[in-house]
Amino acid sequence: MMTEFNDTILRAYNGEKTGYTPLWFMRQAGRSQPEYRKLKEKYSLFDITHQPELCAYVTELPVQHYQTDAAILYKDIMSPLPPIGVDVEIKKGVGPVIDNPIRSVDDIQRLGQLDPKQDVPYVLETIEILTKEKLNVPLIGFSGAPFTLASYMIEGGPSKQYNKTKAMMYGDSDTWFVLMDKLGDLIIDYTKAQIKAGARAIQIFDSWVGSVSAPDYHTYIRPVMNKIFTALKDEHVPTILFGIGTNHLLLEFNDLPVTAIGLDWRTSILEARQMGVTKTLQGNLDPAILLADWDIIEARTKAILDQSQEQDGGYVFNLGHGVFPEVNPDTLKRLSAFIHEHSAK
Amino acid sequence: MMTEFNDTILRAYNGEKTGYTPLWFMRQAGRSQPEYRKLKEKYSLFDITHQPELCAYVTELPVQHYQTDAAILYKDIMSPLPPIGVDVEIKKGVGPVIDNPIRSVDDIQRLGQLDPKQDVPYVLETIEILTKEKLNVPLIGFSGAPFTLASYMIEGGPSKQYNKTKAMMYGDSDTWFVLMDKLGDLIIDYTKAQIKAGARAIQIFDSWVGSVSAPDYHTYIRPVMNKIFTALKDEHVPTILFGIGTNHLLLEFNDLPVTAIGLDWRTSILEARQMGVTKTLQGNLDPAILLADWDIIEARTKAILDQSQEQDGGYVFNLGHGVFPEVNPDTLKRLSAFIHEHSAK
Repeated sequence: MMTEFNDTILRAYNGEKTGYTPLWFMRQAGRSQPEYRKLKEKYSLFDITHQPELCAYVTELPVQHYQTDAAILYKDIMSPLPPIGVDVEIKKGVGPVIDNPIRSVDDIQRLGQLDPKQDVPYVLETIEILTKEKLNVPLIGFSGAPFTLASYMIEGGPSKQYNKTKAMMYGDSDTWFVLMDKLGDLIIDYTKAQIKAGARAIQIFDSWVGSVSAPDYHTYIRPVMNKIFTALKDEHVPTILFGIGTNHLLLEFNDLPVTAIGLDWRTSILEARQMGVTKTLQGNLDPAILLADWDIIEARTKAILDQSQEQDGGYVFNLGHGVFPEVNPDTLKRLSAFIHEHSAK
Repeated sequence: MMTEFNDTILRAYNGEKTGYTPLWFMRQAGRSQPEYRKLKEKYSLFDITHQPELCAYVTELPVQHYQTDAAILYKDIMSPLPPIGVDVEIKKGVGPVIDNPIRSVDDIQRLGQLDPKQDVPYVLETIEILTKEKLNVPLIGFSGAPFTLASYMIEGGPSKQYNKTKAMMYGDSDTWFVLMDKLGDLIIDYTKAQIKAGARAIQIFDSWVGSVSAPDYHTYIRPVMNKIFTALKDEHVPTILFGIGTNHLLLEFNDLPVTAIGLDWRTSILEARQMGVTKTLQGNLDPAILLADWDIIEARTKAILDQSQEQDGGYVFNLGHGVFPEVNPDTLKRLSAFIHEHSAK
């Protein structure tokens, strides 16, 4: 499908007015696609992410099916951790489980450094296949953010309240900052390698950081985020920061040298702008709306698009969180067509 | 311990200036207390909640140990559901699991009506024992709110994204409102019976409603909440509404005929007031802070108390969420003493 390269979404991230509103869907590749579910009967997640051709196929599928304006690298958020010595296992119905949780400076010092070419060659090869041979839209690379990665590493798995993570943050902040630094460097190396391989934008997922208050974000998390986005500035690609339940952190996000901020469905574009958020916005249809009838989906989408056009600043359409597995692919296809058409008027 | 009855917390809820800042801790009874853990070796949660004397003992323990200004009824949030025909099982490490989830109007119409005297006599007896014989501070009764109860009933257990719940809310709103109405009546009957038995305040836990945006709260949830708090107004006891991650909903909460709003740790008292919240506030120390050293706990607590005194409006100290099981009971004791002393100056 190598037709003329369409960079609309990059221009939208950079705040330019574009002829239509570009879009992608978080988790567009995967669980909601029948082709993917068929693959998963034969291959594990590990198989797919470690076989560049297969992984490129999965990453490209939704671009073809839904005509999205970007591909998002199909990859687990934990990918860069096993190479540095974190024993991650993805348990079905649970999520990432880690047998050797990180609780002390010693634990952190035992971790290695990521050499992307050596440690995750399949990630870079996937990106190269996609960007050299397949895609006519930009590929968005990504990484988990330090807080979110740390939460898995410290808790030993998914958590509801992040007790141990916060116990370290508040109770042993020296160790906390050593870990943040370690993860900051890892994320910089990992995402820079993705850019070098061909990624044209980077989204940093700080999925669980909404559990932290704004003053604590400022003290314990902002420094490492500032370091990451400052380092990525040299790469001249748009960067996006996203987390769910972060409306109390949006002004902290806005102060970072990031290009765009992803909104979940709790904060409208209008509210974000009224709050003083000046960066390009991405979002924010509640993914649960996609389970309702089309007239409801259309009305909600139209309201978001209209709001984005009434407000200053760049805008890229997305959902407020990942596509649910039970969403009908035809709904995403229809939604994409509607957005492209309606926003071009 | 029947000394003179101390109604400070009721007066604070009602917005009066009191000689010191009254307090209680969400989940003050239970997991963090060694006496409770010892009991749990012999008795199940079901045993404890169904034996009034035992349940009264567990409810009273933290009042004695920590000198809290209220007792909170020790009871599971799902308590009123089995009597109306919802098969709730509390699974260890999972939470409440429901084998017959509610997905249609037929499912809802099959549910019975709660007759508290007949169906939950042990709840009312527990309250009577506590308020007639034991406590010299008010007992706070409670119930889960319609959205939160519905989320368990529809999903069939705990959920991260409430897909099925929201699918009904957005996609089948007629059924949704039938369920809200049913649960609204149940909650009114359940809490009124608690008040009649001796509860002097009612907290409504809408733990998971933060997953809904403000406009959707207004459309799909506000009507039933308005009905509940309007009905409870006739009882002339303070009512409190609490949910985590609800800072985007605080103005919706403030518009309800409720006495007080519980803040989690994401929104400070100052921010809530600046936002336009006028009701009495309750909260909001991050429960994770209790795992840090005392000097950090004291500094954070002092900041909250000072903020509460600088702002207009009533205030009751609490945590921003329940006590974690791993918190040292001595920490809660010291915290309670510090708050009483510092705020009395």
